[in-house]
Amino acid sequence: MTTATLPLALHDDRLFSSDPAQRAVARRLYAQVAKLPIISPHGHTDPSWFAGNQPFANATELLLLPDHYVFRMLYSQGITLDALGIPRGDGSRASIDPREAWRLLAQNFHLFRGTPSSMWLNHVFHDVFGLRVRLDAGTSDQYYDHITEALQQPAFLPRALFERFNIELIATTESPLDPLQHHAEIRASGWGGRVITAYRPDPVVDPEHEQFPSALQMFGEITGEDVYSWNGYLRAHRQRRAYFAKAGATSTDHGHPSAATANLSPAEASKLFDKVVSGKATAADAELFRAQILTEMAAMSLDDGLVMQLHPGCFRNHNHQLFERYGRDKGADMPLRTEYIQALKPLLDRFGNEPGFKLILFTLDESTYSRELAPLAGHYPALFLGPAWWFHDAPEGMWRFREQTLSSGGFYNTVGFNDDTRAFLSIPARHDVARRVDCAFLAKLVAEHRMDEDEAAELVVDLAYNLPKKAYKL
Amino acid sequence: MTTATLPLALHDDRLFSSDPAQRAVARRLYAQVAKLPIISPHGHTDPSWFAGNQPFANATELLLLPDHYVFRMLYSQGITLDALGIPRGDGSRASIDPREAWRLLAQNFHLFRGTPSSMWLNHVFHDVFGLRVRLDAGTSDQYYDHITEALQQPAFLPRALFERFNIELIATTESPLDPLQHHAEIRASGWGGRVITAYRPDPVVDPEHEQFPSALQMFGEITGEDVYSWNGYLRAHRQRRAYFAKAGATSTDHGHPSAATANLSPAEASKLFDKVVSGKATAADAELFRAQILTEMAAMSLDDGLVMQLHPGCFRNHNHQLFERYGRDKGADMPLRTEYIQALKPLLDRFGNEPGFKLILFTLDESTYSRELAPLAGHYPALFLGPAWWFHDAPEGMWRFREQTLSSGGFYNTVGFNDDTRAFLSIPARHDVARRVDCAFLAKLVAEHRMDEDEAAELVVDLAYNLPKKAYKL
Amino acid sequence: MTTATLPLALHDDRLFSSDPAQRAVARRLYAQVAKLPIISPHGHTDPSWFAGNQPFANATELLLLPDHYVFRMLYSQGITLDALGIPRGDGSRASIDPREAWRLLAQNFHLFRGTPSSMWLNHVFHDVFGLRVRLDAGTSDQYYDHITEALQQPAFLPRALFERFNIELIATTESPLDPLQHHAEIRASGWGGRVITAYRPDPVVDPEHEQFPSALQMFGEITGEDVYSWNGYLRAHRQRRAYFAKAGATSTDHGHPSAATANLSPAEASKLFDKVVSGKATAADAELFRAQILTEMAAMSLDDGLVMQLHPGCFRNHNHQLFERYGRDKGADMPLRTEYIQALKPLLDRFGNEPGFKLILFTLDESTYSRELAPLAGHYPALFLGPAWWFHDAPEGMWRFREQTLSSGGFYNTVGFNDDTRAFLSIPARHDVARRVDCAFLAKLVAEHRMDEDEAAELVVDLAYNLPKKAYKL
Repeated sequence: MTTATLPLALHDDRLFSSDPAQRAVARRLYAQVAKLPIISPHGHTDPSWFAGNQPFANATELLLLPDHYVFRMLYSQGITLDALGIPRGDGSRASIDPREAWRLLAQNFHLFRGTPSSMWLNHVFHDVFGLRVRLDAGTSDQYYDHITEALQQPAFLPRALFERFNIELIATTESPLDPLQHHAEIRASGWGGRVITAYRPDPVVDPEHEQFPSALQMFGEITGEDVYSWNGYLRAHRQRRAYFAKAGATSTDHGHPSAATANLSPAEASKLFDKVVSGKATAADAELFRAQILTEMAAMSLDDGLVMQLHPGCFRNHNHQLFERYGRDKGADMPLRTEYIQALKPLLDRFGNEPGFKLILFTLDESTYSRELAPLAGHYPALFLGPAWWFHDAPEGMWRFREQTLSSGGFYNTVGFNDDTRAFLSIPARHDVARRVDCAFLAKLVAEHRMDEDEAAELVVDLAYNLPKKAYKL
Repeated sequence: MTTATLPLALHDDRLFSSDPAQRAVARRLYAQVAKLPIISPHGHTDPSWFAGNQPFANATELLLLPDHYVFRMLYSQGITLDALGIPRGDGSRASIDPREAWRLLAQNFHLFRGTPSSMWLNHVFHDVFGLRVRLDAGTSDQYYDHITEALQQPAFLPRALFERFNIELIATTESPLDPLQHHAEIRASGWGGRVITAYRPDPVVDPEHEQFPSALQMFGEITGEDVYSWNGYLRAHRQRRAYFAKAGATSTDHGHPSAATANLSPAEASKLFDKVVSGKATAADAELFRAQILTEMAAMSLDDGLVMQLHPGCFRNHNHQLFERYGRDKGADMPLRTEYIQALKPLLDRFGNEPGFKLILFTLDESTYSRELAPLAGHYPALFLGPAWWFHDAPEGMWRFREQTLSSGGFYNTVGFNDDTRAFLSIPARHDVARRVDCAFLAKLVAEHRMDEDEAAELVVDLAYNLPKKAYKL
Repeated sequence: MTTATLPLALHDDRLFSSDPAQRAVARRLYAQVAKLPIISPHGHTDPSWFAGNQPFANATELLLLPDHYVFRMLYSQGITLDALGIPRGDGSRASIDPREAWRLLAQNFHLFRGTPSSMWLNHVFHDVFGLRVRLDAGTSDQYYDHITEALQQPAFLPRALFERFNIELIATTESPLDPLQHHAEIRASGWGGRVITAYRPDPVVDPEHEQFPSALQMFGEITGEDVYSWNGYLRAHRQRRAYFAKAGATSTDHGHPSAATANLSPAEASKLFDKVVSGKATAADAELFRAQILTEMAAMSLDDGLVMQLHPGCFRNHNHQLFERYGRDKGADMPLRTEYIQALKPLLDRFGNEPGFKLILFTLDESTYSRELAPLAGHYPALFLGPAWWFHDAPEGMWRFREQTLSSGGFYNTVGFNDDTRAFLSIPARHDVARRVDCAFLAKLVAEHRMDEDEAAELVVDLAYNLPKKAYKL
């Protein structure tokens, strides 16, 4: 690995085909979308950043420690989480100088070659911080100091970055138990940035969530409903959904192990719920309960208009030892094979043809793009496809998404891009990658005479801006 | 969406790579196949068209109402089937002016951007009807009138189009209960067009088909066999297969939910059949029965020489409400994950090495191309691979088919193109797309020096013409 | 098919993109790796070749009969194994002139168009034997005579070819029952070629292997351990692993039907083992036993440092009739859908975070690349990804491997190329294809400005030479 100081550049034509005919079209298409405002309808930024508007601490705290994408790769090559100073589950933390942790990233930055992380980080380094040399062992301190100092400047406060990034709207994701205080503070502050929430009920709908019993209790306290009866529990959801909608939410989000849905009678559902709250639910009961909840949430969406998002198929916290020591969200989540055609039928039998209902589907199982998701979205009025998600949110993954959903689903059953990130500084980079990939994809269709360029020019603006606004009712 | 009148063109190089080296080769290869006659060995055109040779009614009746590919996309965006005038299951139909239905297509034609439907329709508009402006809201009436008037001209009668399309042979698909009268009329008419049938026994072999009981009864009446005894039932199949073969059939076709085959003893099969005809078969019995039928059909193919086709893995009529109201075939069929290696073993254990037996496999599960289908076809003498099917019958899907079957299966275990359509006018467009994609695919291999151009030139003719004739014994 | 004498050439730019920008980069990258020594850490060449250094018999014995890739394609098109002179299971063999068998290959060489076999064979014909006309019916005898005569020359003896091929190291694969005599002879001979073994225990760890009972008995005789007790059995493995390591082995290799692992207590494992040796194990017991063995092997690897390889997901000898008549390894092995996330968890729960443990994963199910394998390897320190395997060891398959593992796994969790072949003469061709595909893949990333060329130049050397040496501890 070289340690010489080498230039860092973002090429204007990055991600466009090297074929001159395609590249020329891609450039013209990109000119239509490069400067459009960012619509970020699904993500995990922390609303306290925008409420408090305090400076970020340093390069390591901002760019390395919260980003699974980044530290999982270092971990995979034998760098321990303690060596990076990742907080442990018990709140303790190895005493590591953040500058030294940063050095581990710098020394191993070659591991990210070709990955989306390297594209996003280099974009941040170049465009946000104005760095013009590459990150490596020799430039590690220069990077650390430059970034850490910059973060103390007013121009790098969260709200200033929000504005500089040209974010028209960003959605965060909160539990039903969240008082949404930060969102209230943002609105009360008079600041013009639009930060909305989304209703993510996992802890109160998943009997296998480790916080389920305590979360359910708090759910009752917050809502004043008898959440240990099925009808009271459903009323509590309705109440909190209305509260979220009032705070700006236009969507709900559901992260289940599978896409299973169910259509139990009220009596059956009530009986199952009793078993769940009694703590005697088997794994199959828990799965059925989650399945029924999706259908209940769809019913509520029909009433309150919240757009429903389903993010299924993840085995959370797969690394047992790491989970025991460091807790959740340590880069050990793994995709699972996921089935949709049978799984969604109970819900679709009830609501699939409802004009007022929208369900946006995601997947970690790309084999379903052409086989299941595009055929479903290309038929059911209620169904739309979310963009390439998580492990697939890279140029190759986005390209496969388009290539495998186009034939049956077209472009207009998709909803534009989600950055789905807590890495705030990378948001412009991520949207830029998505826009470039769509431009490159459409440029190929134009250059191979499957679409006229004026159609592509209209379409690329729809994908970058109009479709997300329409799909998420923004 | 624009409403200006914009030109419609079919570029000579469409679907060829924009790389000049590849494009030049693709053009030369395409020159070998562009004007070859069409062999259509598997499809769903209506033989009454060629028997009666009556004019098609109007643009909507011809191009919109019968085409799932088209109206499912409109439906997915909230346009009801009633708004299009799609007939309901009870025979009634919303009173819709077909000109207005056409307008819905025209206004929403942007939904099809990049899809195969837009390619096929534009090809039909341009080449069959000579239209030179794009379809949109502003040209809707012009289109409707132009097409509807043209259809009254002799040059647009079914037989004239058949000849103009340079169709050397087309196969339709009929139930064993069909008297094949239209085929007889065609042969008796003295017209030279070659229209043959194929034996598609679904209603009499699937215990879960809603018409199974009545179909079985009619099967007995037509054949004079005791179709409620296993041996009589098998004899009835043999008799009808012979009848179909006499009417020109060279193949059978089987559309099962899975690829399961079985190899029961005659006693076991007979016992299972008794259960099936008694109406007491469980879902598992029905699956086993269909599995056994495939093996029985293979045994008969060995005797009568009919080539066997298997189209598995479709969940028919997934949209319950739509099925209740409008019946079958309303764009709500969905692909299922499909397994072949274990499923086909019972049949292959008996017939996989038989020189006289041919089984052509299709799939809606592309993940099986490289994992299962190509390895099977690249070993078993009896197995061949049908082309990219249905949801995958698009340039991207065809490309994936080639790219994922080439390594283990080569080109010569594939059987050329099937249009598999009831959209008669689109047949030249579909074959043209398939030929262009194969030319583009081979041009890449030539340009990357993996094959010499003379080999590709020979191969592309084999793919377009010789392989289908050989595979289907035409 | 032509029978004229047409030139055979290997183009310098083969497998590089025809886009001039990409091709120029690919050429420069390839210049870095074209002449690097071959590291072949996993394969199936016969060590007796290098021990005895006797001439190969003739073209057919060398290039056709041992190569599944080749004769399976001929078989798929109706050429019987007897017509080729393939030995039968009982040791008999059809009396076929090898020149006539070769003619069948020559006459049907068009079947291989576009496949890796044609690339490898043409490379051997051109570079190893200096042939400059294509193989076809007209040149069959010329080929047969030229190759067969060449094989009698000293320059074509196994050791001379080994040196000419610039092989720095080759690993073979042996059963624990193998005395490793050929390896000892090679070392004793004073010849400098480095030929090492690998520990492949399938016959003594798979209760469903037809040789399991006799293999177990011999395992006891060789090691002097009581291999009918669980602890004695484990000691026997440790002893043989040490013996293999002393003979140069740095790895073990495991070919299981699935990737299942287990984590039984010693008491449970011992009880299961008793059932297995009693011959009363069910299919589920056998699967659980193999699963437990993988975890035991991992535990031993932690002690003795042997790198573990897992090649799961193959249905061996799928063609029953062929297996009965000709035995194993006749081109009838078929890939199976394979699951890793749940299957590997028991083993990973114990050893996934161990710094001293390495497990290299392979697959025949490409749908797992992006969904399971890259996410696993991009997190667990113990896990690495072997290259595109067997049915996927072709340019398209290699390209998909890179494209689908890059995002989550990067390049540095992969281990370079394995040729995995018994076709000795094709080894340079196979490594050349792998190097060219990696150069082409990286050239695309460079030309699309996702990586600088100096990074790609370093990376391509890592992929071709440094990563395999490091991964396999060579």
